[in-house]
Amino acid sequence: LFIDPGFPVNKHQANVIGAPYEHFDVYDYRGDKLKAKLESYLCHGDIASILYSNPNNPAWFCFTDQELQVIGELATKYDCVVMEDLAYFGMDFRKNYSVPGQAPFIPSVANYTDNYILLISSSKSFSLAGQRIGMTGISNRLFQSKGDNLEPWFGSDKFGYAYIFGAMYALTSGVSHSNQWGLAGLLKVVNNGSYNFVDHVKEYGDRAKVMKKLFTDNGFNIVYDMDDNQKIADGFYFTISYPGFSGVELVEELLYYGISAISLITTGSERHEGLRACVSLTGQERFPDLETRLKAFYKDHH
Amino acid sequence: LFIDPGFPVNKHQANVIGAPYEHFDVYDYRGDKLKAKLESYLCHGDIASILYSNPNNPAWFCFTDQELQVIGELATKYDCVVMEDLAYFGMDFRKNYSVPGQAPFIPSVANYTDNYILLISSSKSFSLAGQRIGMTGISNRLFQSKGDNLEPWFGSDKFGYAYIFGAMYALTSGVSHSNQWGLAGLLKVVNNGSYNFVDHVKEYGDRAKVMKKLFTDNGFNIVYDMDDNQKIADGFYFTISYPGFSGVELVEELLYYGISAISLITTGSERHEGLRACVSLTGQERFPDLETRLKAFYKDHH
Repeated sequence: LFIDPGFPVNKHQANVIGAPYEHFDVYDYRGDKLKAKLESYLCHGDIASILYSNPNNPAWFCFTDQELQVIGELATKYDCVVMEDLAYFGMDFRKNYSVPGQAPFIPSVANYTDNYILLISSSKSFSLAGQRIGMTGISNRLFQSKGDNLEPWFGSDKFGYAYIFGAMYALTSGVSHSNQWGLAGLLKVVNNGSYNFVDHVKEYGDRAKVMKKLFTDNGFNIVYDMDDNQKIADGFYFTISYPGFSGVELVEELLYYGISAISLITTGSERHEGLRACVSLTGQERFPDLETRLKAFYKDHH
Repeated sequence: LFIDPGFPVNKHQANVIGAPYEHFDVYDYRGDKLKAKLESYLCHGDIASILYSNPNNPAWFCFTDQELQVIGELATKYDCVVMEDLAYFGMDFRKNYSVPGQAPFIPSVANYTDNYILLISSSKSFSLAGQRIGMTGISNRLFQSKGDNLEPWFGSDKFGYAYIFGAMYALTSGVSHSNQWGLAGLLKVVNNGSYNFVDHVKEYGDRAKVMKKLFTDNGFNIVYDMDDNQKIADGFYFTISYPGFSGVELVEELLYYGISAISLITTGSERHEGLRACVSLTGQERFPDLETRLKAFYKDHH
């Protein structure tokens, strides 16, 4: 069960191994509405796993602790494994999650269920994109648990062994030695407090703040704009729409003005008018260009 | 269809995605006998692909050009894709395959069919084990071909697109940037003739020659000993047995003498008496130890 919008490759991965899936756009089901919506899928008893990214790719909303609690408690009740994609680990810049061992801590479903697998990339938060290395955190209870149907596929009925020696061993050649040492070194300095990893990626939030304003000043709307009743954070991505355009039409029209983005349609979103904008390659030195182009777009279309 | 013995993980990979497979031990089907044996599987029309390693892991035999021709022609006739695992690229030290652009060339099924995917690791031949990078070579004709059943799984009916944007994109995060440059640099010097990659791995053949003699001098037999009618090469692996022992028993018994190996049972071999010995971590400085231990084993068991 994918809580959408989400990373399109995850569904593609299910397709290539022939794993069936369900999905829904969470836009209309934030806060109090999430529980009933989730349970309408889980109650059938055929959902093995729930996947979402938090902060969200492509929309950058963040589940509240109340929402994470709902997800966690239902995962326990219906014996689902939550795969929580924390690619943007600690990058909700509204709070300072950067001080090791000290609150506030990075929100996670792991506080509300033992049925979790945390997926932590190093590309975004740790600025190690080129090195292609990530981490998986599995609760002890899930790691030690057994599954009826694991052995024929993965060679062991123990979840942790099936995961490592079954799935990961078949799927990967491992990560290169030098990159493992690099990431280990980075984790060491993050955890002893001598390196503040959040400071080094706050730039993305600063860019998003300016870029969102440039878009909204020129007639665009932010599609996914709220975390329940709080304005979403500025971060790696944001979502935009323009009155009278579908997302696909808007992608093409913006290209004529030198602006590229992707349509939300590919992400499982039902906001077909929306696009995802990514700030990672738009440095502040390009903001005057962006402003000029958005003004030209607005002049031609309003 | 796996031509065994082979790398156990390949079958495990088929298991985890639920892909059915057939396999046979080629021990009794070398040379003229190979065609009828292969065709007995292919004639049913349900074999999509043939996989083998050459030189062979675990047995280090090498298919002759006559055998590769049989495999290639049958692959064309029955529209199968041959996945040729060339992890030990050029490491048949009986011939000098190291001079770029000059015969003799490394034997390959690619000379006899367009239905090939060549898998070239960099770990063994190019001594880059820790970097976890490899290459795939696909014929132009196969790359451009279309398949009826590809699109629902991989998003494209074109083989090359399905392979890259369907399978590889879903399966991998790519290889780190530095490692790609490292391998590219290595290929450049290999191909301009300024670096002889075979010279740097011949050491494995030298070790195998000595180690095989230490084993056979002490009552062991070489299990897979012939390439059709020629003695197999000395290389990365060889296979051994000892009269009166099954492979599993022999693994345990040798451990008491400080010698480790793996049983051929896991490799799809029908020579259940056999073990695979690997020379990679047994430097020449350990040969006196190996000799002392094998003599002690022989003294206790003959």
